[in-house]
Amino acid sequence: MDPKIMADTLWTLITAMLVFFMNMGFACVESGFARSKNCVNILSKNFIVFAISTVAFWLIGWGLMFGDGNSLFGTNGLWMIGGADNSPETGDAYQGAYSAIAWTGVPLLAKFFFQLVFAGTAATIVSGAVAERIKYISFILFSFLLVAFIYPLSGHWIWGGGWLAGLGMWDFAGSTVVHSVGGWAALAGVIVLGPRLGKFGADGSINAIPGHNLALATIGAFVLWLGWFGFNPGSTMAADPGLIAHICVTTNMAAATGILGATITSWLLLKKPDLGMTINGCLAGLVAITAPCAFVGVGSSAIIGLLAGIIVVLAVIMFDRIRIDDPVGALSVHLVNGVFGTLCVGLFAQDWVSPGTTGNGLFFGGGTALLRSQIIGIAAVGAFVFLAALLFWSLIKATIGLRVSLKEEIEGLDIGEHGNFAYPDFSIRKAWFSATHGGPASNSGHVSSRVREEVLT
Amino acid sequence: MDPKIMADTLWTLITAMLVFFMNMGFACVESGFARSKNCVNILSKNFIVFAISTVAFWLIGWGLMFGDGNSLFGTNGLWMIGGADNSPETGDAYQGAYSAIAWTGVPLLAKFFFQLVFAGTAATIVSGAVAERIKYISFILFSFLLVAFIYPLSGHWIWGGGWLAGLGMWDFAGSTVVHSVGGWAALAGVIVLGPRLGKFGADGSINAIPGHNLALATIGAFVLWLGWFGFNPGSTMAADPGLIAHICVTTNMAAATGILGATITSWLLLKKPDLGMTINGCLAGLVAITAPCAFVGVGSSAIIGLLAGIIVVLAVIMFDRIRIDDPVGALSVHLVNGVFGTLCVGLFAQDWVSPGTTGNGLFFGGGTALLRSQIIGIAAVGAFVFLAALLFWSLIKATIGLRVSLKEEIEGLDIGEHGNFAYPDFSIRKAWFSATHGGPASNSGHVSSRVREEVLT
Amino acid sequence: MDPKIMADTLWTLITAMLVFFMNMGFACVESGFARSKNCVNILSKNFIVFAISTVAFWLIGWGLMFGDGNSLFGTNGLWMIGGADNSPETGDAYQGAYSAIAWTGVPLLAKFFFQLVFAGTAATIVSGAVAERIKYISFILFSFLLVAFIYPLSGHWIWGGGWLAGLGMWDFAGSTVVHSVGGWAALAGVIVLGPRLGKFGADGSINAIPGHNLALATIGAFVLWLGWFGFNPGSTMAADPGLIAHICVTTNMAAATGILGATITSWLLLKKPDLGMTINGCLAGLVAITAPCAFVGVGSSAIIGLLAGIIVVLAVIMFDRIRIDDPVGALSVHLVNGVFGTLCVGLFAQDWVSPGTTGNGLFFGGGTALLRSQIIGIAAVGAFVFLAALLFWSLIKATIGLRVSLKEEIEGLDIGEHGNFAYPDFSIRKAWFSATHGGPASNSGHVSSRVREEVLT
Repeated sequence: MDPKIMADTLWTLITAMLVFFMNMGFACVESGFARSKNCVNILSKNFIVFAISTVAFWLIGWGLMFGDGNSLFGTNGLWMIGGADNSPETGDAYQGAYSAIAWTGVPLLAKFFFQLVFAGTAATIVSGAVAERIKYISFILFSFLLVAFIYPLSGHWIWGGGWLAGLGMWDFAGSTVVHSVGGWAALAGVIVLGPRLGKFGADGSINAIPGHNLALATIGAFVLWLGWFGFNPGSTMAADPGLIAHICVTTNMAAATGILGATITSWLLLKKPDLGMTINGCLAGLVAITAPCAFVGVGSSAIIGLLAGIIVVLAVIMFDRIRIDDPVGALSVHLVNGVFGTLCVGLFAQDWVSPGTTGNGLFFGGGTALLRSQIIGIAAVGAFVFLAALLFWSLIKATIGLRVSLKEEIEGLDIGEHGNFAYPDFSIRKAWFSATHGGPASNSGHVSSRVREEVLT
Repeated sequence: MDPKIMADTLWTLITAMLVFFMNMGFACVESGFARSKNCVNILSKNFIVFAISTVAFWLIGWGLMFGDGNSLFGTNGLWMIGGADNSPETGDAYQGAYSAIAWTGVPLLAKFFFQLVFAGTAATIVSGAVAERIKYISFILFSFLLVAFIYPLSGHWIWGGGWLAGLGMWDFAGSTVVHSVGGWAALAGVIVLGPRLGKFGADGSINAIPGHNLALATIGAFVLWLGWFGFNPGSTMAADPGLIAHICVTTNMAAATGILGATITSWLLLKKPDLGMTINGCLAGLVAITAPCAFVGVGSSAIIGLLAGIIVVLAVIMFDRIRIDDPVGALSVHLVNGVFGTLCVGLFAQDWVSPGTTGNGLFFGGGTALLRSQIIGIAAVGAFVFLAALLFWSLIKATIGLRVSLKEEIEGLDIGEHGNFAYPDFSIRKAWFSATHGGPASNSGHVSSRVREEVLT
Repeated sequence: MDPKIMADTLWTLITAMLVFFMNMGFACVESGFARSKNCVNILSKNFIVFAISTVAFWLIGWGLMFGDGNSLFGTNGLWMIGGADNSPETGDAYQGAYSAIAWTGVPLLAKFFFQLVFAGTAATIVSGAVAERIKYISFILFSFLLVAFIYPLSGHWIWGGGWLAGLGMWDFAGSTVVHSVGGWAALAGVIVLGPRLGKFGADGSINAIPGHNLALATIGAFVLWLGWFGFNPGSTMAADPGLIAHICVTTNMAAATGILGATITSWLLLKKPDLGMTINGCLAGLVAITAPCAFVGVGSSAIIGLLAGIIVVLAVIMFDRIRIDDPVGALSVHLVNGVFGTLCVGLFAQDWVSPGTTGNGLFFGGGTALLRSQIIGIAAVGAFVFLAALLFWSLIKATIGLRVSLKEEIEGLDIGEHGNFAYPDFSIRKAWFSATHGGPASNSGHVSSRVREEVLT
């Protein structure tokens, strides 16, 4: 056995496991940032979503994304996974159905496993944005459709040998392929769903609805940060010592400066260093460095992360202003910074980092050609995913329905959807919901911690 | 240094670390599924059990299990670990005391570390089933006896070159060797201990006793799922690219379909998709695929997981009906599905997956010979472990006692056994215990959330 | 590509990721052991500290520690990281700026990443000891100074080719370089800060202040234990099969016997097996085996861990008696056992474990030369770090201030420093603070669970 194939396979599988673990990170961040009355529902969604993704990607998604075919989608090797797995271990000409991913010599099922955990990530991004009002079954159905059809199509364009790859667009580990795809799908869902009751007052007020468990959210953030050491360095799908070490450092650097950027920005704008913003700054830095991690220098990664941290705070404020209700900041993190990170390839890329790939970006004398490809890719993927998701969300709404009843939303989805509480031994604080019980004070921006209903006697 | 030995050792040690991490998974699942008043006790048990296992397996268990000897137990290399570690790096004939595990060339201490974390898993399975009423010291003592004597004996029969291996029984990663052994030992303990106060009413009612923290339980489930990527693929103890990639995919597939099977079953039978059932469905799928993961195709793994998810829900209901009180569902997960998974080798095995091992199972034209060996192995291990555990549990009960006092059980084991609370800052809801305070309402099946006592003023 | 370099790099990066994950372990242990009113602050500190460490070590620390220079600090390769990365892959004479770490052939950025996560650990040790009263900005500033200047200087002496390395002092994975450095810096901070309000009564009483979430603390302990399988075995920075397997086993063994030592000791001294002591016993065993893990046999590691577990319980009691307020036991774990573990090299080392390094220690016939070097190293590092930290802490106190206001300390740092609660949905128990509201009962040693203030209405 070729030692390189052994090392490549170890690296691919171990980093895939780290990416799998990000499911736990998302579960913790999202449930921690939401209210206790919806905790079981969010945990359930984040737990089942990878099961759904596994089945959807195995049955349909993988073949559409990586199967040989045309520039829009794969047409070979559809339905489950199969065909020859002969290259490049044997040195033969590749005889399988997935030429676009034949550049790595790891076994076919290692490629599938690695790509599966990426597909699952896109689906789990959606769950946070639509939290606290979506029906369980509707979320499950959309997740299947996303992983079976939407994600693999746009993914084929970039990673499956499709038209954007041909155009010279580069997205190393998926700022666009994974994160902004999840983000666009989430944006469509949030628009179709509408905001949570109480988030935006009739008088134009914007109410913060604090998360119920910041320890849980912080655990999630650490797990996601860890998982990103699989996400980015693992995307080499090969144990290339110099490159994987480089990507570990750029990835970590962007997370660090993302933390600093968001913390300082929230300190200045909100008067206090908000932990939620610090966490989202970390994730923003990680999302932003995902596309360029293998193409930019360490110093550039520090700048990219810092900017991402600033951007995410401004984006959270912006989405509130335009009355888009995203309970966990998923749009600000994954959509906005997915776009930003993809642009950064066109700005910060340096040829020496991965010779023969991007060439130099705009800031390093490479001109605007690369940046133009990146912009076309961002726009094309955004338009397709947003519209396709809008269609699927609308179909679900028109058939089985999308949103729980008002009564269920007030009582909490845990009882309505699942029949139990997350924390039955604990006394949950009594509060009331302004829209129901009225009173002008409860509509002001400062009673956010009281926009909560009496659930337990 | 042979590159293969380097890669094999990396794989073995890293996957062993993942299996070690399952201790945290069990701690979180078990404490999350139990009441807050017993949380410190459960955490303590799950934390100390791996320390006990380490000492017990090092001093006694390893040699009994893997030492050369007769078909029942090892007689060489007993007491700690030692002897030559010459093969197969050097290519020499093996000169050590542990021939049955000489097939892998990793260093002796890597083998020991990998097997140790498996032994620890068997012990930690027990802790959930006996939770909320067992004395701390008695659990510690039983854990030592299990890992020092019971686990290694039945393990020797299958993995140590004993009589079941000779008979042609196959258990790749331990559905029987680890999971059902833990399950049988737990079943004996549950019978000797009896149910928790309030679980079964004098009128025949069965009361659900909800767990106190489903976020904690979900964290645990994700960690266990991650850990299984060590448990199953790591059991190659070699960086065999094709095989470890295959096992990653079959393992994950069974977890996914186990989730779906249990969720759908609980939705149909219990009217709501219960998160506890979803979690146990995942674990059931993982336990069931543990024996066959290296012998079956991906499609088969999907079926095995799906069936395991259905079985685990039915098993939970069945154990309740026969008044076996297992607070976390450990018997349904590890015992029932450990048996089921071992049978699945005889049903679903295909020769092409690991040529020269199981051959084909019944469903693939292999006849019933393999299935018969599997059944003999299941029965022999079950009978031995159950009786041996029954003996040890009874001896402990007769000497130092097994169960805490009624007063301590009502107040919670945290105060009685450890002298502190898990969550001293939080208000715990006031409730009462029906058997003490009476009232017919509190004996009905619908007041389960009130079968709880006032602990904190 | 040389297969050895590939395997070495995989090992170095993966173990570095595990050490990174220890940040989450520290966050959970420290916040779990503190009160809920300070939880957001502790999580914030533990989250941002690695971001600060990343920037500080990249900009300044790395070069000071590993740059070629004199026996006190590096003078080449300062400011970020750079220079040739030619050895030993190429077999050329090393042409870079970091000769002291040229013994491993992994890429320069892999070395940097691995050393960075170690530097971050030293900083995070401090955060627990100074918890519940330090200003957020002051902690951030000190962390920067520690990682930029203090840690790399003493580190240069031992790991950077400085004077203690020349003297024959051995510290394999950092009982001194990391743990006692963090501990000495913390001790200085605790002294300058003073104890928390209510910890020590005017009448000489010592009040226990229980942590708010032992499930969180236990999660942290498991994560740290896992992380140590990166910390110690990864310090080979090479995939040396025999040595890394050996270190996995000695590391785990010391954790196990540390648990047993502390549990038994607390059972005897405190009448009950305290979970907090069990956890700190595990960490104590791990800290103590960190220096000798690659130099001692498995049996010795069992003894070292057992002693560490006993020592940590006595140290906690001792620090209470001398009125040093360390909310999480960081000094007892990292400082006391960092010193103890470094001494153990001089006592338990055996030449056969890593031939050509330490030789035999005192207990194995090696005389006292090694022990003398170890003592000199401990004393020199202790004196330097303690005094330098004392200087920095005092400067911070004199300029921007070090401690929050009395009002903020009573209300909790979460509101004062960050503006939100960790658990806003939950009812926090009402209690009062004795020094404010008086009453003799509340000053007795038995009302510790009441030394808490009403935070939420």
